Amino acid sequence: MSDNSVIYIGSKPVMNYCLAVLSSLQGDASSVFLKARGRAISTAVDVAEVTKNRFLQDLSVKSIEIGTEELESEGRTRNVSTISIELGKG
Amino acid sequence: MSDNSVIYIGSKPVMNYCLAVLSSLQGDASSVFLKARGRAISTAVDVAEVTKNRFLQDLSVKSIEIGTEELESEGRTRNVSTISIELGKG
Repeated sequence: MSDNSVIYIGSKPVMNYCLAVLSSLQGDASSVFLKARGRAISTAVDVAEVTKNRFLQDLSVKSIEIGTEELESEGRTRNVSTISIELGKG
Repeated sequence: MSDNSVIYIGSKPVMNYCLAVLSSLQGDASSVFLKARGRAISTAVDVAEVTKNRFLQDLSVKSIEIGTEELESEGRTRNVSTISIELGKG
């Protein structure tokens, strides 16, 4: 059985999330899911690439999924795009 | 043999790129690649989702790849993340 972690990407600096990925993978997690919405989607891709290229060479992208979520704000709903990037060792 | 198209996503409105996808697929192309760098990555995901959900229900995401490119600007190189989203019918 593998233990998975989810890291929600927001507007903090990329390095903060890279550190979160590294510490998740040093624990029990065999893979980590980066999840982001809207403008943070590009940050999620940055986090995956920087972690892989600079910190953990044996890390690879296992899967990427995109989708749409409905957000309710100020009484009306709007659609926002989402991404989920699975990173794992090996 | 299938004919493929590439659409480069920049800073234009999402709908402009959706129209480009639709007209590519009405021609010979059996699939379309959306390619974007940096901040435009989230727009690329928006284009894929909006085209799929609003215009072409039989469109699906065939593959998604992310990567890093080196850009030379003002004498120094910086890394920028990239995405390539393949959309196809069926």
